Order: sequence, then C-alpha cells, then structure tokens
Amino acid sequence: MTEQHPMAVSPGGVGVPPALAVSTVIFSLMASDSTGRMALHIPLVRRIREPYRGLWALPGGPLGADEDLSEAARRHLLDTTALSPTYLEQLYAFGARGRSLAERVVSIVYWALVSRSNAVEGPANALVQGDPNVCWFDADDLPPLAFDHGTIVDYALWRLRTKMEYSRIAGAFIGSTFTLSQLREVHEAVLGRELDPANFRRMVESSDAVVPTGEYLTGTKHRPPRLYRYNSAIDPDPSPLARA
Amino acid sequence: MTEQHPMAVSPGGVGVPPALAVSTVIFSLMASDSTGRMALHIPLVRRIREPYRGLWALPGGPLGADEDLSEAARRHLLDTTALSPTYLEQLYAFGARGRSLAERVVSIVYWALVSRSNAVEGPANALVQGDPNVCWFDADDLPPLAFDHGTIVDYALWRLRTKMEYSRIAGAFIGSTFTLSQLREVHEAVLGRELDPANFRRMVESSDAVVPTGEYLTGTKHRPPRLYRYNSAIDPDPSPLARA
Repeated sequence: MTEQHPMAVSPGGVGVPPALAVSTVIFSLMASDSTGRMALHIPLVRRIREPYRGLWALPGGPLGADEDLSEAARRHLLDTTALSPTYLEQLYAFGARGRSLAERVVSIVYWALVSRSNAVEGPANALVQGDPNVCWFDADDLPPLAFDHGTIVDYALWRLRTKMEYSRIAGAFIGSTFTLSQLREVHEAVLGRELDPANFRRMVESSDAVVPTGEYLTGTKHRPPRLYRYNSAIDPDPSPLARA
Repeated sequence: MTEQHPMAVSPGGVGVPPALAVSTVIFSLMASDSTGRMALHIPLVRRIREPYRGLWALPGGPLGADEDLSEAARRHLLDTTALSPTYLEQLYAFGARGRSLAERVVSIVYWALVSRSNAVEGPANALVQGDPNVCWFDADDLPPLAFDHGTIVDYALWRLRTKMEYSRIAGAFIGSTFTLSQLREVHEAVLGRELDPANFRRMVESSDAVVPTGEYLTGTKHRPPRLYRYNSAIDPDPSPLARA
C-alpha cells in the first residue's frame, strides 16, 4: 500500500497513517445459562468479513468526523445492542503493530455498564434474537475473539473488578436505591464469587459510601429490608477530566 | 476538505478520518528558579507553525507506520529532550472535535518520568540551551498552552500525584536505593508541599512497600543514614496489560 493520502505527509509520518476505531466492552448482569445465577455478560458481534471472518469481536467502528470519542462509543453501542449505557469510561488505546491482520488499526476502547433491567427487558434481547450475529456471552466463558479483543476484555474485566472495590460502580447495574442484599448480589456477580452477608454488611456500614434512605423495600415481608443509596456527598470521580 | 482517502470509505466512516498523534507529558525534578527547591518540571516545544503558532505545546507527533504507540512516545521524547524515560504509561486519548483549530486530530497521550540525574546532568540541558524553542517549565507555573494541552497537563499532574500515594512511582525519579530523606524530598516535590519527617518515616515503615537494604549512605556524617529500596516482592502493576 504505497499510495499516500495528503494527510500522511507530516513530520515523522511514514506512509499511510493507521486507521482509527472506537470499540466498547459492554457489561451487563444476566442469569447464567449454566448456574442460573447472575453473572457478567458482554455482547459480541460475529465478523462477516476478513480478517478474522466468523470470529466474534467487540462492537465498534470508525470515529465519525463530527463526533467525540465517547459519542462514537455510544453510537456503536446503540447500533449493536439498542441500549444506552448507565456508565461509560475510556479504557485504553490499543495500537500494537501486529494486532490486525490487514490494515493497521489503532482502537480506542471504552467500557460501559448497562443496567440489568434494561438488558433483560429492553429491546436488546429482541435485537439479539433477531440477529444471530449479535449475542450476549458470559464474560468468563467467551469464544475465541478476533484481533486482540481477548486481551482487551481481560483488561476491562480487571478494571471493572478493581474499580468495584472503591467506587459506586455497582449503582450503574441496579439503579438509585437498593437493599444490601441487592448490592451484595451485584458485587458477587461482578467478582464471580460469593461474599459472606455479615462481612459485607459490616464493610458497607463502616464506610460512608452507602447511606440509608430512611425507606424500606415495599412488599409482603414481615420485616421489609432497608433501602440504601450512594452517598452523594462523596465525589464519585475526583479526576479533573470529570469536571472538564 | 472533501477529497477522500480509500481508507476513509468504511462502515460508519464519514469523510476524511481524523489524524492520529502521540504526545507525552514528561516530568522531571529540577530546582525551581524562584525557590531553589526541587519542583516538577516538564519540557515544552514552541510551535513554529499554525495553528497556535508561537504557543508552547507538549512534545509529540504522528504515529509511525512501523512503531507501537509507546515506541512513538519514546521516539518523540528522545527527539525532543535526548532523554529516555525511567517510567512511561499511557494517560488518555483526547479526541474532542474542537480541540484543534485545523484538521481533526486525536492525540493518544503518554506520561513519562525522567530521573533527576539524567535531566540535570544528561544531554538534555545542552539541547535545551541550544534550542530556544524547547524549554523546561515549572509544572505549576506554565505559560498558556496550545490546543487542549493545558487540560492534558492538569490531568497528568493529577494522575502522577494520585499514583504517588500508592505505588513506587518515586523510584523512577531517584534510582534503586535511597535514604528516607531523599524519598521524602521526592514526595514533597511531586506533591508541592512539605511533609513532616517523623510522620513520613512512620508512614513508610508501617507499609511494606519500602524495605532497608542493610547498607548505609557513604559519606562524612557521624551517623550515615540507612539506605532503602522498593520491596520487589510487591507487584508494582497488577494490571493484566503489564504482563501482556
């Protein structure tokens, strides 16, 4: 490929510049096919062209000339799953030379959370049922992925699980108020292991990240459980980019 | 600009694809002109063409067709300062539509640390003295910067100062062994404030991040200070990308 685009002629540039793509690792909580318990799932798209034809890949595509990076991530997410994220954050830019078998592509990757009710009851399932080339997979039981997308998913899982421990990330899965049992269920699903209820309660109550709303879950129980919310007095993201 | 490169014709792509650049925020510790104390400094390059001609900017440039993203960051860093980093990490990809006054550019930004001895005694100063368009600036007293580089530097400073608290990042400034006073001096310079020596010693000794080497700083003192090193049993970066 020796033909040169005018924009390729710039100081230090050599030949055709690498293409730019925006892809997203989208997490949702769904019942696992094997265990029936809530588990992390991500939607994948089957490639219908080379390279890696037939393999599954993260949803994504080129950056439009008129959209910001996060807008491109939202657009590809909506196109693929018909969902809007409850949380969206830039993960990393992947640009190793050998990561694509064809033209050189640099992928700026986002990770997104989609709330359980949206993912289960929204139009996503209809879309998935109607198109065999878009499917939700258990994040811990993925098929072989195209490009370096397996590495990307591993990194996104690590970031999600790490961030879970010190942020209000669970709220993106369950909405604004929740019982401690619901909060623990989300933590268990994300971490992929059971947590001791008493220890979990002590951990939550000793931090000031979650506070009681003063209300109770309505229902038929003799002792309805207390509802909690994240403490809005705590800045969820102290990064200066969050205020930019 | 309506002329289309063949690579621009891809699903979802609109017109000419955004250009891709790799830039780096390079930190070093140098004596402040005003106070004489060690303070964070970063090298900037004065722009000799539009847009933002005459303003200072981060060193960087296009991604070469044959180099990985971090290799491009190292190359631009070497070209600008004649230095090799002791630490290099991807910071963020900046791609807002309005960030450049001319063609659309997405910048993948790295941040780097350069050790004090390199920065002070190495060839960098010679290079800086010989070229008035490359200068070191006090990171907390910068001139107006081109593009969104002011926002980028603010974010890099935040990341450095946040990471300082829980990682061995100070080691990138001072080498493999150090006294507690030297370690405290680095922390003070990065954080931009004085730390109580007794509190700092207690904080370091109560963590297991730093351990005594069993050796002492050679010199003329009556009681030579103990030398420490970072605890190599602790993984400095548990991210799966570090093992990729």
